[in-house]
Amino acid sequence: MSKLIEPRTLRGFRDYPPELMIPRERSMETARRVFRSYGFGPIDTPALELTEILLAKVEAGSEINKQLYRFQDAGGRDVALRFDLTVPLARFVSQHFSTLGMPFKRYHLGTVWRGESPQAGRYREFMQCDFDTIGTLSNAADVEIALVIHDLLVALGFERFEIHVNNRLVLNGLLDSLGLSAQTAVLLRSLDKLAKIGRDGVRDEMIKEAGVSAEQALSVIALAETKGSNTEVLAQLAERFSDNESARKGVAHLEEMCRVLRTAGVPEERLHVDLSICRGLDYYTGTVYETFLNDLPGIGSICSGGRYDNLTGRYTKQALPGVGASLGLDRLLAAMEELKLLPKVGTPAPVLITLFAADRLGDYQRVARLLRVQNIGCEVYPDAKKLGAQFQYAEKRGFKVALIAGPDEFATGTWKVKDLAKREEIAVAEAELIETVRRLVEGN
Amino acid sequence: MSKLIEPRTLRGFRDYPPELMIPRERSMETARRVFRSYGFGPIDTPALELTEILLAKVEAGSEINKQLYRFQDAGGRDVALRFDLTVPLARFVSQHFSTLGMPFKRYHLGTVWRGESPQAGRYREFMQCDFDTIGTLSNAADVEIALVIHDLLVALGFERFEIHVNNRLVLNGLLDSLGLSAQTAVLLRSLDKLAKIGRDGVRDEMIKEAGVSAEQALSVIALAETKGSNTEVLAQLAERFSDNESARKGVAHLEEMCRVLRTAGVPEERLHVDLSICRGLDYYTGTVYETFLNDLPGIGSICSGGRYDNLTGRYTKQALPGVGASLGLDRLLAAMEELKLLPKVGTPAPVLITLFAADRLGDYQRVARLLRVQNIGCEVYPDAKKLGAQFQYAEKRGFKVALIAGPDEFATGTWKVKDLAKREEIAVAEAELIETVRRLVEGN
Repeated sequence: MSKLIEPRTLRGFRDYPPELMIPRERSMETARRVFRSYGFGPIDTPALELTEILLAKVEAGSEINKQLYRFQDAGGRDVALRFDLTVPLARFVSQHFSTLGMPFKRYHLGTVWRGESPQAGRYREFMQCDFDTIGTLSNAADVEIALVIHDLLVALGFERFEIHVNNRLVLNGLLDSLGLSAQTAVLLRSLDKLAKIGRDGVRDEMIKEAGVSAEQALSVIALAETKGSNTEVLAQLAERFSDNESARKGVAHLEEMCRVLRTAGVPEERLHVDLSICRGLDYYTGTVYETFLNDLPGIGSICSGGRYDNLTGRYTKQALPGVGASLGLDRLLAAMEELKLLPKVGTPAPVLITLFAADRLGDYQRVARLLRVQNIGCEVYPDAKKLGAQFQYAEKRGFKVALIAGPDEFATGTWKVKDLAKREEIAVAEAELIETVRRLVEGN
Repeated sequence: MSKLIEPRTLRGFRDYPPELMIPRERSMETARRVFRSYGFGPIDTPALELTEILLAKVEAGSEINKQLYRFQDAGGRDVALRFDLTVPLARFVSQHFSTLGMPFKRYHLGTVWRGESPQAGRYREFMQCDFDTIGTLSNAADVEIALVIHDLLVALGFERFEIHVNNRLVLNGLLDSLGLSAQTAVLLRSLDKLAKIGRDGVRDEMIKEAGVSAEQALSVIALAETKGSNTEVLAQLAERFSDNESARKGVAHLEEMCRVLRTAGVPEERLHVDLSICRGLDYYTGTVYETFLNDLPGIGSICSGGRYDNLTGRYTKQALPGVGASLGLDRLLAAMEELKLLPKVGTPAPVLITLFAADRLGDYQRVARLLRVQNIGCEVYPDAKKLGAQFQYAEKRGFKVALIAGPDEFATGTWKVKDLAKREEIAVAEAELIETVRRLVEGN
């Protein structure tokens, strides 16, 4: 026999055993269900693309160039693994424009790869969950993205969260009125650090990096710091920017978002007009979104995005606007774990039927199928080991209920039902088995 | 502006737009639900692994070497994209053996890559759906795999299908009694072609490749051609192999499978003991499975697998047996399309609310959310275009129902409900809206 090879994963990569994969998969299915309920359709694109496609929008100095998994394929083509789902979306929409029809609403849950230095909680392979509406300038699409974020968080089991929204047009209006339009990108990059480095830090950086006066810097910061209820903030803005067309449009869009979400039944405290949210990227041109958990503000935004003007400019002359957001699945799962929203189990089925009398396997599988038909997952233990060993397996995996039947039970048409958490056992007639098991499974 | 880059995918790769992805995703979710209902847990492993891990079991002359997407990463490591999910499973189980606990039942839906010559319906990137029980020699696990295949096909919408099972031990027993054990691999490779090249072709190939006599070859073929009901076939085998221990064990395992599936409620006609099923691979050592659609036998097996002795031999001294199968998702979807089991739609939501009065967006989204809560997907059109254009969009996407409300409807608390297939429109009070829409959506 040849030498053994040490089983191991690459640095920065990891396996997902069932304990991690069960909640991950459940969250992904929940997200898909919410996206679908709004009419977003799923797409998928290749993991591997031509490098020139992937790098079409990436600047020469960008980190992405260094992080790319890039190689020559057997046909000598320069190819790479996708590093996000936005570039593939841009390529996809450009390529299939003539058949897609607009507006085009898609979601895409897909793996992406970046050769970053591995650090705690950061991996070189991770999942992105993006949803976007392409091909409409209507604010109705922006409003809908906020609704999707809301329903998504609720469906995932959260109650205390806040969606923070802003509109770049308001900031643009202010910068325009201050004569600082040319410095927009640099100023927003500084402003984005407000929570991190504070007012003085941002002011100093703006003076240094954008060459603005202290007074100008403080005007921008003061806008970001506007406080009050959504109604108050919007009233202040409306008054202040009554003669600034860009800002007025941004304010009107934010007003509509607040109004529609209220009418649609979203609790007021879950939507915040927050003028400090600007997202670092040049990319965004209108609404921007970030989403925070009230009980874990420190982990940052778990669902972010915004409106952009031209998704497809590098691949087609057809300029296509869009609006969307991305759910940070790994951050979300870390949060759910911290908030104890994740029961840690190694099995997706709650019921184990023990293999007590090996010759009755048919009956065990017959009853297991009755439970499965009722949406109660049920495993039949495959080996006729001692019951103690089978219970040990059941507890390790996290089953909730074990069923036992031997000659005595088959003779009387009964089953022993064991609540594994309480270690209590009762006997029930087969006719009552499903309801008994359901109560135990749902009660736990 | 820099030169446009032609948007295109790599040769042998493809995009999945919503029309293709909606049924694909639905099938995958159905498969996951069935696997989970039997207590199989999901896992995931990295797409990228060390080449020495992936090639540990691959012979030097194998096609896989040529098909591998293999390169040096930025750290100079020799890495490759996984070409199946079995090798990663072997590595995974070896690496995590001490914490997993046995038996270990897992499913894995994952993308794999092979640089094969592209041909119709074959791609270089495709999805595998594997499910396996590791760490038990019990035939109960083999029986369960057949049950999973059965419930999977039913859940996917098939009624007329046959699971063909055989056991390598029966064939091994025959070859042993003919003194041909040493030629097993070559003979089975020929036998596997019975349906394709016929009895004479197989006989000639066996004579040529394995150096057996015509009589020996015909003995093997005759066994494979044994005909009759499961009971008849098993009775013949029991008699013939009464003094051959290996074959007797194989027959007993097949008998138990038939008996348990019958007791568990699987219709008799869906399980066939078929001695011609041998699977080409050396890999299998016991039960083997293939699954055929009665209405489309020509597409071949859509769910195949078997029992194997030693999954992990290249990575650990711990020899782990297993049994499992793999659903051919792409073949299955092609079949479903051919059998017209797939409605081709571009939206996962059946209902479109038209944007008739732009200032009532809040009411449109309020009603849309009422429908969504009732599990009726609902999109709100984002632009206040002419209704004709909105209906055109609805038809192109495949919505079933459109809802319209303007000032008149809001004044009277009614909605116009349009059945898009029949092009019929009725007016209903908002209180009756959900039930009316549900009837139309489910009735269509």
